Amino acid sequence: MPFDDTLGMQIALEEAQRSFETGGVPIGGALIHEDGTILSRGHNQRFQKDSATLHGEIDTLEKAGRLPGSVYKKCTMYTTLSPCDMCSGACILYGVKRVVIGENENFVGAEELLRSKGIEVVVMDDSKCKELMKRFITERPSDWNEDIGV
Amino acid sequence: MPFDDTLGMQIALEEAQRSFETGGVPIGGALIHEDGTILSRGHNQRFQKDSATLHGEIDTLEKAGRLPGSVYKKCTMYTTLSPCDMCSGACILYGVKRVVIGENENFVGAEELLRSKGIEVVVMDDSKCKELMKRFITERPSDWNEDIGV
Repeated sequence: MPFDDTLGMQIALEEAQRSFETGGVPIGGALIHEDGTILSRGHNQRFQKDSATLHGEIDTLEKAGRLPGSVYKKCTMYTTLSPCDMCSGACILYGVKRVVIGENENFVGAEELLRSKGIEVVVMDDSKCKELMKRFITERPSDWNEDIGV
Repeated sequence: MPFDDTLGMQIALEEAQRSFETGGVPIGGALIHEDGTILSRGHNQRFQKDSATLHGEIDTLEKAGRLPGSVYKKCTMYTTLSPCDMCSGACILYGVKRVVIGENENFVGAEELLRSKGIEVVVMDDSKCKELMKRFITERPSDWNEDIGV
């Protein structure tokens, strides 16, 4: 039985909430194998680690450690927000099979590029992901702009 | 006077050589402002730090620290090898002005995507970059495949 996307997104959202509670950008991720193994979970570390590159998905990939290319091909990347060009590029580099997105109302990333590379993209339109992200953007607009290079 | 691309590539190549000498993938980078300020230099850290995401350009961006989006727009990313989808995506996210590439003989990344986003791409076709990269790929083919997700 394939892994339940609702459970995957729940993990990603927990990570986003953890990031928010520790002063960070509330974007979380999880990398989950099609056999159900949770390879990693992570979240944006811009403010926690003063990092310009540890977006939610990059942190998640980093925490999964070094893996053979074949493993990624059987994985789904869960992310609470539509992935930016860098994070989409990372998913393309490693050829993850699917990208499941919590919401794309607050930000639209490179979803079309992912699809053009044969990656299945699912947008869950999750209200909790939307509310948390919207709260951060409203409360800290300049921090959000920094995170997306504006 | 604009920063000399030859000098920028020399720094990137020094980083690649440093990586090679410490057991790593010989890809180096430098982020240089149009006023000549060297914001950072870095190299691939897959083997040195067991990192799946610190490619040469990502390490370089990470080492530049958190910057306002406006700064990247005046910068050139120097990299010894044509940047992969992740690293090209990072350059697109932050909107670096130019990407100067040492060589694209051993690997061709997302150069066309960079150009389609309005980023100037220059390929220097540097023989030292080519030789060092070719040596690594020949000596450690499986490590190289891991780095590009094959």
